[in-house]
Amino acid sequence: MSKLTKKVSPTSGLSPGTLVHVGEKRIEKPVITVFEYNEKSYEEQTLSSISEMEEHSLDGQVTWVDISGIHAIDVIEDVGKKYDIHPLILEDVINTSQRIKIEEYKDYVYIVVKMIYLKEHTREIIDEQVSILLGKNFVVSFQEGEGDVFDGIRNWIRSGKGRIRSLHSDYLAYALLDAIVDSYFTILEEIGDAIEVLEVELTQRPTSELINTIHSMKKQTMFLRRAIWPLREVIGGMERIGQPLIEDHTLTYLKDVYDHVIQIIETVETFRDLLSGMLDLYLSSMSHRMNEVMKVLTIIATIFIPLTFIAGVYGMNFQYMPGLTCHWGYYIMLGVMLVAGLIMLFLFKKNKWI
Amino acid sequence: MSKLTKKVSPTSGLSPGTLVHVGEKRIEKPVITVFEYNEKSYEEQTLSSISEMEEHSLDGQVTWVDISGIHAIDVIEDVGKKYDIHPLILEDVINTSQRIKIEEYKDYVYIVVKMIYLKEHTREIIDEQVSILLGKNFVVSFQEGEGDVFDGIRNWIRSGKGRIRSLHSDYLAYALLDAIVDSYFTILEEIGDAIEVLEVELTQRPTSELINTIHSMKKQTMFLRRAIWPLREVIGGMERIGQPLIEDHTLTYLKDVYDHVIQIIETVETFRDLLSGMLDLYLSSMSHRMNEVMKVLTIIATIFIPLTFIAGVYGMNFQYMPGLTCHWGYYIMLGVMLVAGLIMLFLFKKNKWI
Amino acid sequence: MSKLTKKVSPTSGLSPGTLVHVGEKRIEKPVITVFEYNEKSYEEQTLSSISEMEEHSLDGQVTWVDISGIHAIDVIEDVGKKYDIHPLILEDVINTSQRIKIEEYKDYVYIVVKMIYLKEHTREIIDEQVSILLGKNFVVSFQEGEGDVFDGIRNWIRSGKGRIRSLHSDYLAYALLDAIVDSYFTILEEIGDAIEVLEVELTQRPTSELINTIHSMKKQTMFLRRAIWPLREVIGGMERIGQPLIEDHTLTYLKDVYDHVIQIIETVETFRDLLSGMLDLYLSSMSHRMNEVMKVLTIIATIFIPLTFIAGVYGMNFQYMPGLTCHWGYYIMLGVMLVAGLIMLFLFKKNKWI
Amino acid sequence: MSKLTKKVSPTSGLSPGTLVHVGEKRIEKPVITVFEYNEKSYEEQTLSSISEMEEHSLDGQVTWVDISGIHAIDVIEDVGKKYDIHPLILEDVINTSQRIKIEEYKDYVYIVVKMIYLKEHTREIIDEQVSILLGKNFVVSFQEGEGDVFDGIRNWIRSGKGRIRSLHSDYLAYALLDAIVDSYFTILEEIGDAIEVLEVELTQRPTSELINTIHSMKKQTMFLRRAIWPLREVIGGMERIGQPLIEDHTLTYLKDVYDHVIQIIETVETFRDLLSGMLDLYLSSMSHRMNEVMKVLTIIATIFIPLTFIAGVYGMNFQYMPGLTCHWGYYIMLGVMLVAGLIMLFLFKKNKWI
Amino acid sequence: MSKLTKKVSPTSGLSPGTLVHVGEKRIEKPVITVFEYNEKSYEEQTLSSISEMEEHSLDGQVTWVDISGIHAIDVIEDVGKKYDIHPLILEDVINTSQRIKIEEYKDYVYIVVKMIYLKEHTREIIDEQVSILLGKNFVVSFQEGEGDVFDGIRNWIRSGKGRIRSLHSDYLAYALLDAIVDSYFTILEEIGDAIEVLEVELTQRPTSELINTIHSMKKQTMFLRRAIWPLREVIGGMERIGQPLIEDHTLTYLKDVYDHVIQIIETVETFRDLLSGMLDLYLSSMSHRMNEVMKVLTIIATIFIPLTFIAGVYGMNFQYMPGLTCHWGYYIMLGVMLVAGLIMLFLFKKNKWI
Repeated sequence: MSKLTKKVSPTSGLSPGTLVHVGEKRIEKPVITVFEYNEKSYEEQTLSSISEMEEHSLDGQVTWVDISGIHAIDVIEDVGKKYDIHPLILEDVINTSQRIKIEEYKDYVYIVVKMIYLKEHTREIIDEQVSILLGKNFVVSFQEGEGDVFDGIRNWIRSGKGRIRSLHSDYLAYALLDAIVDSYFTILEEIGDAIEVLEVELTQRPTSELINTIHSMKKQTMFLRRAIWPLREVIGGMERIGQPLIEDHTLTYLKDVYDHVIQIIETVETFRDLLSGMLDLYLSSMSHRMNEVMKVLTIIATIFIPLTFIAGVYGMNFQYMPGLTCHWGYYIMLGVMLVAGLIMLFLFKKNKWI
Repeated sequence: MSKLTKKVSPTSGLSPGTLVHVGEKRIEKPVITVFEYNEKSYEEQTLSSISEMEEHSLDGQVTWVDISGIHAIDVIEDVGKKYDIHPLILEDVINTSQRIKIEEYKDYVYIVVKMIYLKEHTREIIDEQVSILLGKNFVVSFQEGEGDVFDGIRNWIRSGKGRIRSLHSDYLAYALLDAIVDSYFTILEEIGDAIEVLEVELTQRPTSELINTIHSMKKQTMFLRRAIWPLREVIGGMERIGQPLIEDHTLTYLKDVYDHVIQIIETVETFRDLLSGMLDLYLSSMSHRMNEVMKVLTIIATIFIPLTFIAGVYGMNFQYMPGLTCHWGYYIMLGVMLVAGLIMLFLFKKNKWI
Repeated sequence: MSKLTKKVSPTSGLSPGTLVHVGEKRIEKPVITVFEYNEKSYEEQTLSSISEMEEHSLDGQVTWVDISGIHAIDVIEDVGKKYDIHPLILEDVINTSQRIKIEEYKDYVYIVVKMIYLKEHTREIIDEQVSILLGKNFVVSFQEGEGDVFDGIRNWIRSGKGRIRSLHSDYLAYALLDAIVDSYFTILEEIGDAIEVLEVELTQRPTSELINTIHSMKKQTMFLRRAIWPLREVIGGMERIGQPLIEDHTLTYLKDVYDHVIQIIETVETFRDLLSGMLDLYLSSMSHRMNEVMKVLTIIATIFIPLTFIAGVYGMNFQYMPGLTCHWGYYIMLGVMLVAGLIMLFLFKKNKWI
Repeated sequence: MSKLTKKVSPTSGLSPGTLVHVGEKRIEKPVITVFEYNEKSYEEQTLSSISEMEEHSLDGQVTWVDISGIHAIDVIEDVGKKYDIHPLILEDVINTSQRIKIEEYKDYVYIVVKMIYLKEHTREIIDEQVSILLGKNFVVSFQEGEGDVFDGIRNWIRSGKGRIRSLHSDYLAYALLDAIVDSYFTILEEIGDAIEVLEVELTQRPTSELINTIHSMKKQTMFLRRAIWPLREVIGGMERIGQPLIEDHTLTYLKDVYDHVIQIIETVETFRDLLSGMLDLYLSSMSHRMNEVMKVLTIIATIFIPLTFIAGVYGMNFQYMPGLTCHWGYYIMLGVMLVAGLIMLFLFKKNKWI
Repeated sequence: MSKLTKKVSPTSGLSPGTLVHVGEKRIEKPVITVFEYNEKSYEEQTLSSISEMEEHSLDGQVTWVDISGIHAIDVIEDVGKKYDIHPLILEDVINTSQRIKIEEYKDYVYIVVKMIYLKEHTREIIDEQVSILLGKNFVVSFQEGEGDVFDGIRNWIRSGKGRIRSLHSDYLAYALLDAIVDSYFTILEEIGDAIEVLEVELTQRPTSELINTIHSMKKQTMFLRRAIWPLREVIGGMERIGQPLIEDHTLTYLKDVYDHVIQIIETVETFRDLLSGMLDLYLSSMSHRMNEVMKVLTIIATIFIPLTFIAGVYGMNFQYMPGLTCHWGYYIMLGVMLVAGLIMLFLFKKNKWI
């Protein structure tokens, strides 16, 4: 998540609308997957350029073009031509430092979101920009690299289970957003667990590494917050668009995703509060510990420093010192020291220091 | 209240509308209680499945179906069929990590709230999700487990006291909400008492356990806040729905619950402020104590370290040292030390350290 | 002001509309004072039950019924019957943990405010809930106990001075609110003086009791804030009600009270900011003092500990030690110590420690 | 600026509309200056009572009555009668603890603002309440005492320079407000300079007086903020009043003052942020210094305390101690001490303490 | 960026509309560059006064007059006359402490923004006020000095590349704003890098200079925030103006700049949060370090002070002390000391201090 402080656009100085890829290249060659389906059948193709695409034009067909590898500017341009997309949108698609947003055009809706998920085996956190173009009977999705959270959707299309095959492109767009939003929950669970572990450690042994962990978790939460907060507007924006792109009965589903987004936002806010509370806890626990350390030092020092002084006095080499030659002098002196020490201890006890 | 950081939905990856229970199973077998009543009579049944239900269809009858044990998916599905409920609502009913909300549909209103109450004997805090379906002449309520705050309502129906039997389903829904909101007051009183005890302890003996108690009370307050805050919208939403589901004269009662909700919110905010203030108090009291400890150490050390040095000087074994052989040397030296010590004490007094 | 954390309603579990007094009983027997007046004459009665009331029905008469002792449920019920008041309002009247609010009904307006004033001789702070019912030609006011801030108004009615006798019930309600709001100013002045005293003490001798005083003043301010903040809405609400209950030319007076309320709110906010600033000041002054203490300790210790070491070395009992037998050894050693001490002092001076 | 915590109205307990002066008396006898002007000529009179005023009624004349000394209640009452002003306005005029506000009446507009300026020679900060009454062809301004920021306006009227003589009373009111707002800039510059000086001192020698200075500057900024913030509404309110009192082409000028007010508010907010930042800086710099002090103490103590112990051991008077009689014992012991000391130093170096 | 605290207008006391230059003089003589272009051709002139300007009046021509050096009041006045500009606008143009704003007039739009950029070779941060006047077929831009971020636009006009030559004056204004907004990104990147470096240093070696760096970066961010925040309104304002000044298809481009502004604001907010987090990190790391230092001191002192006391006891010169003459006394004593020291170490280990 080191991109946090680098969300800056290097396209400065270029004429608006010039296509320049911003971000790292996550995949060697772009992969294009095309699904064409209606209630009865479906076709699936994996291509490496748009020109290879065969169109089948089934009855009431929905076409889903999924492109991994947005650094391939020629592929993006081909899609732009095929679906007649405004050049500023294409510029946004390939700039991975885009804001989360929704833009309504005459014939299509353009949505930018962040997909954040845990890679299956490595438990590594992947964050990728996903752009979705929703038209009357097509959806084009743009991803930065391989791997995503859409496998469930692909399987529903293939198997014909669920409602997806019998509904239109707006439901497919909803399904993509729902899959992305759901994947946030996994991250939240991960963070929630880490916070609980942190909290236990904090009360038991507050080390200075903990403070760094809390700090970096705060940064992660900040990052998540920035990615999730504008999603409210995006989903709300989709609800407002309405006919003909978004059909009425998809609205109930969108309301459901909206609820999830709100729930994620609330959880993230809770995490922020918890982490702030933990910082306070750490500081006050530190301050308490310092107090304890100081008390021990003070007790030891205030007891022994005066005693050492007395011993020092009787170690002086004056020729005429009373008591030195007295037989019980040594024992009397030890007794005096013992009493002085005990009085000190009693005073500490009284002041609740021990 | 350990659910705080775990409010995440494990239904990720499933087709929307698939029924999966989320949460712990609090009761072995579901219990269904059905009340049918009108102004003149009432019927009460306790069942274990919806199919056993006998309908009596009294004049102007209100039916209240109360289901404890939402993990019983078949029961939920039966209710869904009987009252023709949208599958996404049923999904919400059985997911115990739902947001507090109100949703208006054509024939019914769906309300999700959290019921938080003290178990009668154990004084344990129970928090349960309650879903309420309000239709023209029925109310269905879904609870996670046994035990609730509705016994008063059941008794009013049985005894015919109060207005409940002579009014419609909207008044019953109001009564359920009112009972839930009233139960928050008991929790608030509990917390209020705990805060007062804390405050006294804090000024008398600030230990480090206190800081953990404050921290966990802050978390509880945070949790309550999240549960109560959206209730405003819920009650406000009910007021706006209006005819025919909500009758005009129920509005006055809803306004009353709304007032209670606002009062709870304000109390929770006050608690938050008080707890924050207590943290500040703890930190400054700690800092004050440290100061006291340091002063004692400094006074002891600054008085005795120089004196010990003087004693050390006269303990040196130089052959030629003036004064050692002097008869009054020892007494003079002691006098010098005494004077030095007194001067130190005087300086401390002047600087208001003692 | 200990009610702060106890604002909870014990009516939980009762049917809505049941009359139960919530709060302490401040007066033994209820006292009812009735004023009937028009521009020309006035009648004053002091009763102990509503049934004793004699009505005179003067021309264009205004009736002011003032009831002290809201725990007398039968009196409240009598008033309810006489003026045909909704039972939920009566429930609110006798529950002293009510929110500040205004509610508009068809024939009357119901207002709840807090009256906070200094008792004349004891300088004790009294806070009481006052409910005001404003009808077309009557005002009913409910107080918790004896003593209030309305003596000025009573005198204007009796003497016929000012505009009150020539105007209607809305002006009387305004006059009551104005008297209540004005009494806040006395409390504010009290707090303002206390803050100034605190501030001076804080810069001169920051003791740990001060921090407790600041904390409890913060709580008082919080309490005042909660009592005053909703008054804006109440006055604003009265302005909006308009004809026929509130006459046009009363609006100018209401605007004036509104201004006072805003001024009180601003003053309270200022107090909050000042008190927060004082906490910061205390903490930084504490931290500064600690620094000073540490410096003294460090200066003494770093000067004398090395010197004591040197003295200790020459106190060792080795048989062969150079210098011990030297005639000037002692003086040379003392000189070395002096120089070492001076160098230390010089270094401290250079580092601005002294 | 000691009025900050004393903004309370002592008119409590009086009938509304009774004229009582609130505030200090800044001038012995009231001074009334009257300007009557139109495009061609002007008349200037200095009076001590309104009855002395001679009216000239020039063509399209504007009359500006400027009254210094609002404690002279009879003068205020005379003005009230002359221009037919509502008694509540007069009450506000002579109460110097008024809120900044604008009130629109049928024939005139009433504006209250605070004039804050540096006295020319003494650089003393003066804050005065100024009330402005703007009518169709007159402006009445009320000041607390002598001295103001309106000399520029007087000179423009006298000399006929600028647009003022050819425009109406609304332009004169604008000019007065503009002069008042402009005078804030001088104060801001003063504070800005002080903040810069503070900042430099803070990084170079953070003394405890600085913290008091920061605190009192925070209070000043708070005070300014309270005086300036409502000015937005005042100017905005004037813009909304429109015809016939405010002519269209004055709107452009009002927009300009509005801009200045916003700029002042932003600057004050910046000052607040800067001062808060400085407090943090002070505290962290204090904490850093304490750390440094502690390190020095620890280094000295940890090096010399063990060495002193070793010296102490060889100072014991046991009869049989090995090494004491050894010829090189002393030197060996010194060597051991030196090595121990060097190891300590090396460890400190490694831990980056030195 | 030292202008932060000096944003004050010295025009106080002058008649409104008087032209006075506020700010430093950044260039000796003003430079006026005029571009006249349409789709087919373009003319470029560099002048030192407006009167030298030759007009060519091409078909559908756009004229861009760019003036560097706003202290040249005569030039500004000439432009004012030529394009018939309101004197208050000219006053704003030459006052470099202007607020960022947009003002709509009948025939033109007036925009004030801040241009912040890195000088090419010196990497010095330059901030300059730029005023833009957009009329139907002209754009006038006013800069404080030489050097700007418009070279790209000049090259597009000269080369005819991009869309600029075929579009109208509104596109030119958009292009100027876009160039200014894009230049912020470079600054943000610079700050972002600095923050990352700071963060690493903070966890590795927290010195007191860091805290000053954090403080000054916070001030820079504050400054940027003030410059950028109002840009939202400016761009939003341009979108609202619409026909005939702003053509429909420029709206898409404006939406794009708006997006960039939002992105910059979010990044600045992130920086603020990061810097605040770093301050917390610094303080807690300081507190941790102090704790470590105190522990070392305490461990050394509590081990050796009691041992030194024992040694001191046996260094006393009493004639009759048991054990001194014992042959093994010395070794026994050393053993006792060793055991005492080990017990101490064990206790520290148990309390997790080591």
